[in-house]
Amino acid sequence: MDNQHSESDKPGTASQFTWLLRVYYEDTDAGGVVFYANYIKFFERARTEWLRACGADQNALASASGLIFVVRSTSMDYRAPARLDDTVRIASQIERMGRASIDFKQSAYRNDILLTTGSTRVACVERDSFKPSPIPEHIRQALSNWNQDGSVNWSPAK
Amino acid sequence: MDNQHSESDKPGTASQFTWLLRVYYEDTDAGGVVFYANYIKFFERARTEWLRACGADQNALASASGLIFVVRSTSMDYRAPARLDDTVRIASQIERMGRASIDFKQSAYRNDILLTTGSTRVACVERDSFKPSPIPEHIRQALSNWNQDGSVNWSPAK
Amino acid sequence: MDNQHSESDKPGTASQFTWLLRVYYEDTDAGGVVFYANYIKFFERARTEWLRACGADQNALASASGLIFVVRSTSMDYRAPARLDDTVRIASQIERMGRASIDFKQSAYRNDILLTTGSTRVACVERDSFKPSPIPEHIRQALSNWNQDGSVNWSPAK
Amino acid sequence: MDNQHSESDKPGTASQFTWLLRVYYEDTDAGGVVFYANYIKFFERARTEWLRACGADQNALASASGLIFVVRSTSMDYRAPARLDDTVRIASQIERMGRASIDFKQSAYRNDILLTTGSTRVACVERDSFKPSPIPEHIRQALSNWNQDGSVNWSPAK
Repeated sequence: MDNQHSESDKPGTASQFTWLLRVYYEDTDAGGVVFYANYIKFFERARTEWLRACGADQNALASASGLIFVVRSTSMDYRAPARLDDTVRIASQIERMGRASIDFKQSAYRNDILLTTGSTRVACVERDSFKPSPIPEHIRQALSNWNQDGSVNWSPAK
Repeated sequence: MDNQHSESDKPGTASQFTWLLRVYYEDTDAGGVVFYANYIKFFERARTEWLRACGADQNALASASGLIFVVRSTSMDYRAPARLDDTVRIASQIERMGRASIDFKQSAYRNDILLTTGSTRVACVERDSFKPSPIPEHIRQALSNWNQDGSVNWSPAK
Repeated sequence: MDNQHSESDKPGTASQFTWLLRVYYEDTDAGGVVFYANYIKFFERARTEWLRACGADQNALASASGLIFVVRSTSMDYRAPARLDDTVRIASQIERMGRASIDFKQSAYRNDILLTTGSTRVACVERDSFKPSPIPEHIRQALSNWNQDGSVNWSPAK
Repeated sequence: MDNQHSESDKPGTASQFTWLLRVYYEDTDAGGVVFYANYIKFFERARTEWLRACGADQNALASASGLIFVVRSTSMDYRAPARLDDTVRIASQIERMGRASIDFKQSAYRNDILLTTGSTRVACVERDSFKPSPIPEHIRQALSNWNQDGSVNWSPAK
């Protein structure tokens, strides 16, 4: 069974990347739920895997072009808690694709329950100077045209 | 020397609570800087210590009244990075004191360099039902009237 | 392609459970490598997934029988570093299966390079009293007889 | 009141460095206690502060000499749990001072209750090659002769 796929809620909606992850003890806190700061990690994992699925391995990018992606701002809204052993589904969309930065809109779900929403601005910068730099065209294209439907296995091994 | 004190930038400004912390390896990432999600932890430590300085130990509060504080939303803006061994100063203010929630505005500095700003809405809820509950009056009072000036040592032992 | 499977190095060797994971920014430190404490999390994820593959969802176990697994001791040996974007393979074996505790032996690899080895003693205890309790027989059986060969997809969704 | 000091349990015992820290939500897990892997972070904070108290700021050391300290192995024994808001005292001693590595023995306490003990081997290596390198003599001296008695404030600001 595929566990990562684009979801088209409606015809014509933007492309979307879905990533699944499990809640482990390390993710929880004494309230018995996922520690709220950890959703920021969950959202980053999903963005990283989307970039990877688009052929943009961040390590390779840094080596080849000296470019890295950094987070400029993030805002999170907490609706419902996740708990130990839950499977959490992260849905990621692009809200704005700029020349040197991207605004992602992401949501975390357990089954159909919305847990958390977040917006994150990610900027492309030169690794050494931290100066803004245009996002490489092939990455912009790949992200914008992402249209995979239900066919990407979670498969870090390849 | 005191390392935690309220700072009155100008006469008449709101009360402010300052907390200092050190950047350890655990806080950094492969970019050589503090991992951005960790500022959320730093800000929480500062809020926790402010509550404690106001006599509101969260464990005691939960035991005595069944109330806990939970984060409803947070938004972070990243300006400049902190690095290993840096001392980071967290300045916390109350932006809005509601009946059952508080909006905090916080900033992280290294010396006089602004690193990160953040806003966080914290709600008081019943531990078991997660239903909103009025913030106990003595905590509202203590936070609102916080006016300590430069005289509180970091001293978890007492 | 399967990304989780038992490996039988030789006929007659103990059963082994393999789990794959990716290194994200959150896992690294300013040394440019995986922060050493995080291997403890990696090893726990692998043990948790093995238990789950054996039908022992920890949340369900706690609800049904009031039993939880806790770590009594752990020892780690660091050989080589992992870096951002690496795929890390965790191989887990049972070194000793006791009445109320299990000794796991685990190794982390990047391709064929041994990164870290670790031993962890996990005890079964009553959730409320933390008193040792016999491991439920069906879990002992399932772990001891684990003999899946290369056929389990990473699939938290089901 | 001082919150960091060497303790001489008996005349003639080895020097010891004590560090205090607070348990925050970020440190706990759904079991309601400090997540066991986090004691490794606590112990590292204490070693880092001891080195700093000896004049060995790790960032400065790396810049000046290209040397960093890395953890080779660690072993932890868990006795009793710590909980939210607890003050945890970390006592650190040197078990063996080698030419290029140091074995630390550390314990975590809540009041007089022993929570966790751990041994950690830390090696001095060249930052770029990760090759072992002799520990600078002034650091060996400072650590070995550590004999501060109850007079060092927690004061990251200076």
